Amino acid sequence: MSINPQATIVDITHEVPPQDVREAAFAVYTAYSYFPIQTIHVVVVDPGVGGDRRAIALQTERGSFVAPDNGVLTHIIDAESRGAAHVSADGHLLQVPANMKAVHLSNREFWLPEVSATFHGRDVFAPVAAHLSKGLPIDNLGEPIDSLVVFPTAKPHRAPDGTIIGTIIYTDRFGNMITNITHADLSRLQAEGIHVIVGDHRIRGLRTAYISAQPGQVLALIGSSGHMEVAVRNGSAVQLLGLSIGDKVFVKPNG
Amino acid sequence: MSINPQATIVDITHEVPPQDVREAAFAVYTAYSYFPIQTIHVVVVDPGVGGDRRAIALQTERGSFVAPDNGVLTHIIDAESRGAAHVSADGHLLQVPANMKAVHLSNREFWLPEVSATFHGRDVFAPVAAHLSKGLPIDNLGEPIDSLVVFPTAKPHRAPDGTIIGTIIYTDRFGNMITNITHADLSRLQAEGIHVIVGDHRIRGLRTAYISAQPGQVLALIGSSGHMEVAVRNGSAVQLLGLSIGDKVFVKPNG
Amino acid sequence: MSINPQATIVDITHEVPPQDVREAAFAVYTAYSYFPIQTIHVVVVDPGVGGDRRAIALQTERGSFVAPDNGVLTHIIDAESRGAAHVSADGHLLQVPANMKAVHLSNREFWLPEVSATFHGRDVFAPVAAHLSKGLPIDNLGEPIDSLVVFPTAKPHRAPDGTIIGTIIYTDRFGNMITNITHADLSRLQAEGIHVIVGDHRIRGLRTAYISAQPGQVLALIGSSGHMEVAVRNGSAVQLLGLSIGDKVFVKPNG
Repeated sequence: MSINPQATIVDITHEVPPQDVREAAFAVYTAYSYFPIQTIHVVVVDPGVGGDRRAIALQTERGSFVAPDNGVLTHIIDAESRGAAHVSADGHLLQVPANMKAVHLSNREFWLPEVSATFHGRDVFAPVAAHLSKGLPIDNLGEPIDSLVVFPTAKPHRAPDGTIIGTIIYTDRFGNMITNITHADLSRLQAEGIHVIVGDHRIRGLRTAYISAQPGQVLALIGSSGHMEVAVRNGSAVQLLGLSIGDKVFVKPNG
Repeated sequence: MSINPQATIVDITHEVPPQDVREAAFAVYTAYSYFPIQTIHVVVVDPGVGGDRRAIALQTERGSFVAPDNGVLTHIIDAESRGAAHVSADGHLLQVPANMKAVHLSNREFWLPEVSATFHGRDVFAPVAAHLSKGLPIDNLGEPIDSLVVFPTAKPHRAPDGTIIGTIIYTDRFGNMITNITHADLSRLQAEGIHVIVGDHRIRGLRTAYISAQPGQVLALIGSSGHMEVAVRNGSAVQLLGLSIGDKVFVKPNG
Repeated sequence: MSINPQATIVDITHEVPPQDVREAAFAVYTAYSYFPIQTIHVVVVDPGVGGDRRAIALQTERGSFVAPDNGVLTHIIDAESRGAAHVSADGHLLQVPANMKAVHLSNREFWLPEVSATFHGRDVFAPVAAHLSKGLPIDNLGEPIDSLVVFPTAKPHRAPDGTIIGTIIYTDRFGNMITNITHADLSRLQAEGIHVIVGDHRIRGLRTAYISAQPGQVLALIGSSGHMEVAVRNGSAVQLLGLSIGDKVFVKPNG
């Protein structure tokens, strides 16, 4: 507001659990593409603040991002690189794809005059984003970098019998369990031709909406992020099934 | 922001419990009349999303509303119709009053190009509201409709001995219990001439403010919504009394 | 929005516990100086609403404030008066410093037409702030006042052996425990030359950032507010140590 009084600020969420980079990564991934492409997205889930993790700005075809270089942009880079991203053997470093530009925020000219060691969101990311919003070229913020920290994104894989084996990657405030299995992964299957196995539960077919199930019933559907999720109509799948991020989900063609 | 970059967004609350249409109905009812009349209010408590409940826009003399047709606008229609609303025998359908206009959101031209089955707030309501905010006439959004879903609003009633029998309809984040008994219902009574019975508690008289009671004391007063509420000064009536929405409250003239 | 449609609204927090004036005082104190000086800060933690506490507006060199006169501006007045504030013997009343101006909000012309006894934030503070944001001089809001309610701010003191004895004054959503010991209080000491004693814990030295400690380790550092805080890396000090606001913290030079 001091640097760019014309800026429009939209809060996405303040409910990511402290230090939870993976949950933050999914939250910004599900939101960014619905904003104008000139939007500057600021992500402040930053457990390494004050250490040697870099602060970065990343320009993509669908928005710019100011964030710690801690993997929080993993899903966005994955989506925006259109399969052209080269990841290191250990899965933790990614070569910046040709359709993006990344810089290390090293130019203190665009930070607040005094910078704390514990709150770069306030002292570095926000003023840098404000300058970007006024049209400052990203190159002015620091030196270009050619690799970024990502976390390995477990892709679902297919067993010899055709079963798709996926993982729960996110749980939302409604208690829905979102998996890494996407609409595209299921495109060759019929919604009624499969069953989903999660914990002790066996779910027949995919629904199109929560309302298609009975109240209290466990169901699977393609959620609003394009990922398959397991839900309970008018209830919480997390509470009912007792599963959490990292647990496995199986999609089996009916035999 | 993409459709109308000039739009001003104000968040009222993200703390309505999942699927709680009645709590959402009260929350929007207590807020709407404090906004400019050209405001477009978007309500996304929508347990029937993806089913056959309609999505609607409603234009009133004090603001427009974009919401699921699930009763979430019940209190607003009640207030804005000035007693002219005709409700069906079962209490679930209401003829749109003459001073309002309602349409079914059926014109996909004003939705996002891809619509999920689980998040119409993002894919239908928000873009429609953005178009309305730019001056699009409500008629362009779809065909006019002449009845709306409401839920029966229990009005307080009066027993032969003059006792007013009301119901708790809302509890706020301070633990105050708001009833369906309004200032108007009590207008013929003296504040000191009554007692209020709720659960095992008998409260003498109406206070004018929380501060009029002792810390920790249970009190009754007319709250900021114009409804009688039961509160505990510097505490939570919900926790202390163990009551919840639907429980009865009695106002008795001193005898 | 009705009075000043051009106003920019920024929400700082809705998570101050009900009636907790001291937590609200710290929350607004850590935020205000990062906003433009023409900002009008509205504080609505107001347990005395409807009683005889005054509503006030305060103009300082770094922003204006609309709030109840209940001490919620204590830290700001302390910081902005630059040591020139005269506090009454009991610590509860403060003479308005020469570089500020305070008025009692008594001119109903700038309130909503109807004022509830329980929600002055909506009915008095917000409309008054909207008028201020349009350039209304603060003097028009009511009569000038020359003293304000504050709460005694326990300053850390120094024992004969050089130990600094401070107090926990705030805990944040990460579980960090913020003390009243500031950077300035520690300026004569070396970060490695001290230890910090809190509850049963003895912490060696000050860290510069959370990341300097091992995961799960208790540490002390100067936080983003310039105050010393006790934290647990990737964890909650409040949960681990079981301490709360008002508990003592000791900083001892190594002997």
